[in-house]
Amino acid sequence: MGRRRPARGVVVGPGQDCAVVDAGRGRWLLTIDALVDGVHFEPAWLSPQQLGEKSFLVNASDIAAMGGQPRFCVVNLSVPPAYRERDLRAVQRGIVAAARRCGAAVVGGNLTRATALSVSIALLGTAPHRIVTRRGARPGDRVYVTGTLGDAAAAVRLLQANVAAPSAPLLRRFRRPTPRLRAGRVLAEMGIVSAMIDVSDGVVQDLGHICRESRVGAEVRTAEIPLSAAYRRLHGKDPRLALRGGEDYELLCTVPVRHVSTLQRQRARLGCPITCIGTITSGRRIGVVDDTGRALPLAARGFDHFRA
Amino acid sequence: MGRRRPARGVVVGPGQDCAVVDAGRGRWLLTIDALVDGVHFEPAWLSPQQLGEKSFLVNASDIAAMGGQPRFCVVNLSVPPAYRERDLRAVQRGIVAAARRCGAAVVGGNLTRATALSVSIALLGTAPHRIVTRRGARPGDRVYVTGTLGDAAAAVRLLQANVAAPSAPLLRRFRRPTPRLRAGRVLAEMGIVSAMIDVSDGVVQDLGHICRESRVGAEVRTAEIPLSAAYRRLHGKDPRLALRGGEDYELLCTVPVRHVSTLQRQRARLGCPITCIGTITSGRRIGVVDDTGRALPLAARGFDHFRA
Repeated sequence: MGRRRPARGVVVGPGQDCAVVDAGRGRWLLTIDALVDGVHFEPAWLSPQQLGEKSFLVNASDIAAMGGQPRFCVVNLSVPPAYRERDLRAVQRGIVAAARRCGAAVVGGNLTRATALSVSIALLGTAPHRIVTRRGARPGDRVYVTGTLGDAAAAVRLLQANVAAPSAPLLRRFRRPTPRLRAGRVLAEMGIVSAMIDVSDGVVQDLGHICRESRVGAEVRTAEIPLSAAYRRLHGKDPRLALRGGEDYELLCTVPVRHVSTLQRQRARLGCPITCIGTITSGRRIGVVDDTGRALPLAARGFDHFRA
Repeated sequence: MGRRRPARGVVVGPGQDCAVVDAGRGRWLLTIDALVDGVHFEPAWLSPQQLGEKSFLVNASDIAAMGGQPRFCVVNLSVPPAYRERDLRAVQRGIVAAARRCGAAVVGGNLTRATALSVSIALLGTAPHRIVTRRGARPGDRVYVTGTLGDAAAAVRLLQANVAAPSAPLLRRFRRPTPRLRAGRVLAEMGIVSAMIDVSDGVVQDLGHICRESRVGAEVRTAEIPLSAAYRRLHGKDPRLALRGGEDYELLCTVPVRHVSTLQRQRARLGCPITCIGTITSGRRIGVVDDTGRALPLAARGFDHFRA
């Protein structure tokens, strides 16, 4: 919302995973996100408790992308009149449970009537000493991603197709994403990442955010995209869902070449796998090449709430 | 959400106008609120810019009720696909403008598709040295309210009735509430209020929140309810809308008798009128008496989003 001179106390303003604020009492991260019935999920896909958990976890993922630690959140629940009290309590329980697992507390909330169920959560977290944004990538930096990509998108495909016994590991990835809090903190503290973002809209689109903010391009090698066994059972080595699908909630970061060996040595500290999937380039576009080096057309971008 | 032992760093948890958090770096207030199309307003009642302004101001009112200073906010906009880009920008402009007028900055946001327009804002503010909650009222304390009551509710009546030229002063109170930031800060700093809340659901209902939290009752004298000239032109001395109507965004506080003379002496510092409307009692109910001392039946409570 506007790019004029930041106001007093605003260290990092709009356009990042979190804002960074400082009023002379230490730096805090602040972020907000919402899950809306019919947009981010169908009621049959998530139990009320799972919806609550996921609503918190997607926020925590934004804190992870800035290397922070979630501490306090406030919740707005917009609820249709017909929504059952019991289900509402389950949503709340899910939020509280997920917050506690991440070391945070639900400190307040607001309940309002609405036509569709939606859960908005604002999360306040402590900031690391070194702030990492989407803005520092430089040509030559290596592009890394944690975990595996495409699992949640593959789960959504199964849910949309009403598959009788959808793959449990994929469903878990959709229902209960794992914010990479430890990895984010360690990467930020080590000072070896030049830019970082969480993968929520598909890796190509989120890499696009880093490239746009950093005024660079990137080349991604599909052969390097980390795919889970469950994903490969359904889609073989086809990386398309992993490239474009959303809701991975992994971390995507860029690492200057001089820091790559440090990352390799210290990778056990991250608590999750991390894989190099490409390189930052000086062009302004993102290219995707397959294992033969052939460029893949990027027909569709990642998930965009304002497209059909 | 739950009343178990508060988590580390939580000074004041759920159930107040704001949460108070402290992670060893000073205390912060955190609050969230939402305005939903068709619930809190009809599109014809508020221009997009006014909607943006009001969305921020109702949050700032919660900060005022805790004696704090708004500093940083994040915004979630849930927007139907058909909503015009131009109007969306106007909503954002309104939020930014209202925040700036209150000494705060919009530091981040999130945009999502939805079936109905809604604006959720989470606001972070600095806390006063003395925290005031809804919980400290004691029998004998005097009940005070800032400004005048019932204006916004009277405006909503006019809007609902499609009156051709509705009263401008009343409309202004509905469209652009005045969070009583200065009054809230001064009252908290002076240490003379035992409990405080902002009047958003009607003074009787919000006094009920103070009474429930403080385990006391209250007697309100209708003859003392401050009514604006514009209100009186339409409703004479009938206080019913002023008692039950919502969206006043005035401050309601309780003052121990020993501090009343201090309040009287210092009232000019508040930046707005303040009026004694009743007394806290040891019973657990709220009584309303008219100017002859006769009890009024409280047929309807204030505005409740989950009633028809």
